[in-house]
Amino acid sequence: MPRLGKNCYGKSAIRLVKVGREGAAGTEEAGRGPHSLSDLTVDVRLEGEFTAAHVQGDNRDVLPTDTMKNVVYALARERPVEPPEAFGIALGNHLLESAPAAAAAVVALRVHSWTRADAGAGPCEHTFVRGSAERRVATVMVDRRRISVSAGIEGLSVLKTSGSAFAGFLRDRHTTLPETRDRIFASEIEASWRYSAEPASWTETWRAVRHALIATFADHQSESVQHTLFAMGTAALDVEPLVEEIQLVLPNQHHLLVDLSAFGLENPNEIFVATREPFGRIEAVVTRE
Amino acid sequence: MPRLGKNCYGKSAIRLVKVGREGAAGTEEAGRGPHSLSDLTVDVRLEGEFTAAHVQGDNRDVLPTDTMKNVVYALARERPVEPPEAFGIALGNHLLESAPAAAAAVVALRVHSWTRADAGAGPCEHTFVRGSAERRVATVMVDRRRISVSAGIEGLSVLKTSGSAFAGFLRDRHTTLPETRDRIFASEIEASWRYSAEPASWTETWRAVRHALIATFADHQSESVQHTLFAMGTAALDVEPLVEEIQLVLPNQHHLLVDLSAFGLENPNEIFVATREPFGRIEAVVTRE
Amino acid sequence: MPRLGKNCYGKSAIRLVKVGREGAAGTEEAGRGPHSLSDLTVDVRLEGEFTAAHVQGDNRDVLPTDTMKNVVYALARERPVEPPEAFGIALGNHLLESAPAAAAAVVALRVHSWTRADAGAGPCEHTFVRGSAERRVATVMVDRRRISVSAGIEGLSVLKTSGSAFAGFLRDRHTTLPETRDRIFASEIEASWRYSAEPASWTETWRAVRHALIATFADHQSESVQHTLFAMGTAALDVEPLVEEIQLVLPNQHHLLVDLSAFGLENPNEIFVATREPFGRIEAVVTRE
Amino acid sequence: MPRLGKNCYGKSAIRLVKVGREGAAGTEEAGRGPHSLSDLTVDVRLEGEFTAAHVQGDNRDVLPTDTMKNVVYALARERPVEPPEAFGIALGNHLLESAPAAAAAVVALRVHSWTRADAGAGPCEHTFVRGSAERRVATVMVDRRRISVSAGIEGLSVLKTSGSAFAGFLRDRHTTLPETRDRIFASEIEASWRYSAEPASWTETWRAVRHALIATFADHQSESVQHTLFAMGTAALDVEPLVEEIQLVLPNQHHLLVDLSAFGLENPNEIFVATREPFGRIEAVVTRE
Repeated sequence: MPRLGKNCYGKSAIRLVKVGREGAAGTEEAGRGPHSLSDLTVDVRLEGEFTAAHVQGDNRDVLPTDTMKNVVYALARERPVEPPEAFGIALGNHLLESAPAAAAAVVALRVHSWTRADAGAGPCEHTFVRGSAERRVATVMVDRRRISVSAGIEGLSVLKTSGSAFAGFLRDRHTTLPETRDRIFASEIEASWRYSAEPASWTETWRAVRHALIATFADHQSESVQHTLFAMGTAALDVEPLVEEIQLVLPNQHHLLVDLSAFGLENPNEIFVATREPFGRIEAVVTRE
Repeated sequence: MPRLGKNCYGKSAIRLVKVGREGAAGTEEAGRGPHSLSDLTVDVRLEGEFTAAHVQGDNRDVLPTDTMKNVVYALARERPVEPPEAFGIALGNHLLESAPAAAAAVVALRVHSWTRADAGAGPCEHTFVRGSAERRVATVMVDRRRISVSAGIEGLSVLKTSGSAFAGFLRDRHTTLPETRDRIFASEIEASWRYSAEPASWTETWRAVRHALIATFADHQSESVQHTLFAMGTAALDVEPLVEEIQLVLPNQHHLLVDLSAFGLENPNEIFVATREPFGRIEAVVTRE
Repeated sequence: MPRLGKNCYGKSAIRLVKVGREGAAGTEEAGRGPHSLSDLTVDVRLEGEFTAAHVQGDNRDVLPTDTMKNVVYALARERPVEPPEAFGIALGNHLLESAPAAAAAVVALRVHSWTRADAGAGPCEHTFVRGSAERRVATVMVDRRRISVSAGIEGLSVLKTSGSAFAGFLRDRHTTLPETRDRIFASEIEASWRYSAEPASWTETWRAVRHALIATFADHQSESVQHTLFAMGTAALDVEPLVEEIQLVLPNQHHLLVDLSAFGLENPNEIFVATREPFGRIEAVVTRE
Repeated sequence: MPRLGKNCYGKSAIRLVKVGREGAAGTEEAGRGPHSLSDLTVDVRLEGEFTAAHVQGDNRDVLPTDTMKNVVYALARERPVEPPEAFGIALGNHLLESAPAAAAAVVALRVHSWTRADAGAGPCEHTFVRGSAERRVATVMVDRRRISVSAGIEGLSVLKTSGSAFAGFLRDRHTTLPETRDRIFASEIEASWRYSAEPASWTETWRAVRHALIATFADHQSESVQHTLFAMGTAALDVEPLVEEIQLVLPNQHHLLVDLSAFGLENPNEIFVATREPFGRIEAVVTRE
């Protein structure tokens, strides 16, 4: 007899933009001061006991995903949406209360980057320019007993032109790769770290971990992507005691040295083809003993 | 002290096209008969004991991802690349042998769809037209003791204009969704099922499961996405005894009825806006007792 | 003094899904018979005398793009949306009437492909499976004197494994490409043809041109992409006297032969890497004398 | 008789990364100083008399697109790749010389944005972080008599939360849009301007135009996208006398105010849904009298 296993449902890609305005609505100051801008994509989902919905088509325990979306917008009106960790906790708690059949609510938030434009007289009060593809990520899991919070980064593309080697590796009859002490190391960092307790500031902690990752990427004498990944993870754990463990995914975005010898030219690590396919993919968790 | 946790590495997005030709190379018939075309994207990765690489930068146990890529092309020359399950097993076995430090090799293969063109005199022998975005997927995990094979489908977009309701659901103060007995149900099916043993034919079994999924989607009187998902999973288990369990992800791609009343027009479930964001996401495993 | 030059404005990416239902709404048969499904993306724009809007910020001549979108949905309710050429003419005429300052309305329609699912008892009446990425395209330009109609194809990916050569080309000191009498020829056909008059059937004509393009691609002994492009264009003009001229864009999607010699393997045009970047781009108009 | 009309061919999406290194190769200083990084995507194409290739399949006048790609990499080794205008002129001249049958060479270059990472001790010498999706664009057309250069911007996303209205527009029976004096104005600027002569510095001029566009977007009291577009174009012409005309494409990326009244909440222009489809598209050329 077929039986329902692990299941969940929710709403994904909820696009939320919140404008923060100085001065209360209806007052003289309304809309006069500098505005703030928060641009998030939110995914919410519920897990729990939903057998009746699946097996009998009985929806009485099913909070519609449309309602979940409404909750995101309503709560965004009632409270700050940043830091995303705090907004995610509020959302998770709310959703879990709304759905008695749910055992857990999971909220994933991605914050898109905008910076104030500069029109010549310093940062603009009301105009913003989109930043890079990097997203600050927060993932909150709320169940009936506790709250788990992860923070992270997606889409942070970095490249170093020095300090990266790959040599001394295992060779077999299908190995044609030459050894190198000097290659381009390019990656799009994906990082996610779990907190053992709530830090004093979600945002300061996020910044400190982000900085540790980038600084280590920059300074590390890399023998491989794995080698640098572990150093980056170690730096993150070192800089923030509340980070229990960190998962890093570092694609190796290959830059191939172009052979210019047919044209009578040397190529001393200067001219490269940036490639998208295939790419290396290196992934690991660095954790505390 | 930081410590290496779960880790893996490999090569992703290896693009492989194989042309099958009648007649042996070098003979009169070479290239004369009908050709076949296989178009795959392959991801390979290794898991195991790679602490030295991560912690000390010692690469002696590291089979380069470039070598893994070479293995894919070399094996593709030496043996059939379809069915992908069989090619994946061969790749996984080979990679595990090549890397003594590896505990497991995982190979994921996606087969892109092409059909023979019709130039007026029946199917062409050498010309193909690309099919839909649907991919046949196979994922093989080989460790030192056993081989696990999953098969699946990605990117199969389906839509039904009748037989789909959503009513009787939980309501709270954030619920504004009206109940409906007649809505569009559109989804992009993602399915993955695990085999308890090797079936007589990977391809026939894949086809039978695929057919069961589509036929159930079409015929089911749906009370919700969850309800149809469970019916589809049940049908897959029913049709193939070797399928141990199946995971289904069914995004709910909302089609919103357009309000035409301002223009003096009714809209009896006829004119819709297809939306991409946000979308529902319903996911479950259906398993045997 | 700055002056306004050529300008236009409109709404893009209007997503329209229309379900055709047998039987009038409110009758017994309503929704019982087989349904039809039309899935289009529509772009509309106006050109004309809009200087006041640009220079003085005076919007009195500006029909909002939101209104244009409403027109698409309202007209879709009132009349058939396929063939797209006819729907586009109706839209263009309507928009031009609605905006007295406009000199011309341009409507571009893309029809996404769906086929009836097969649940075992022949084609389903209410369930559809998405087809390939190929879109039927129609572009209609209506001005105060006349209507121009173009039809076309986008996203039609084709590949031939035989009958394609590239040799005898110009060589200079930067040329390293070897000559070949046998290569893969893969492309994503983009075609657009202009009618001198309205054909008896937009759809039959579209099908005939499409078939001529594919059959010629398949049968042509290709000396280059240019050579086949011209043959395809010629075939289109030959098959349909009302086609005045046709523009074809044929990217050359390179499939690189993998060098397997390091592994002791020959590769008799069998194993290829499909690449995305860079790609050749060949574009030409074929017209009548 | 079918006849060849306007045609061109070339190579697109040539990915070029150049690392600039202090100190000559082979010397002690090689690779020690700060590196520079240039990341470009280049498209090249030729136009001219290629009838024989199209009609007879005679390739003797056809410089292969593979050769064009080689030229990009070889010239990138021999000379600076930035400013892109200058590199484009060199490429165009070279290609035109290499292909006697060509009447013109067109080179389009997109520069991807990277900034130096900051690892704590100021900007890194060898490590870079990817910037926003904004690309600096240069397009060069070289024919046998002259060289035309356009510069531009793509992918520059901006958003203002104040100073944008849309009211007083044409209304008809399909108009439902309410008037507003306060809306979000979000766009992804695409700009392209043509030079009447070579400026003293391609880069300084590009920066000045870019700044004029952003500052005007920020400061303008906008009555419509058209109104701001014209002001932006005017500012560009004002700031740089050598800019002959500028084309601007400003999609209107709608941010919809969320109706929270069902939850007892006002929404004083605070909570929005960012949408992708449909979008407005406003396009105009601003030129000198």
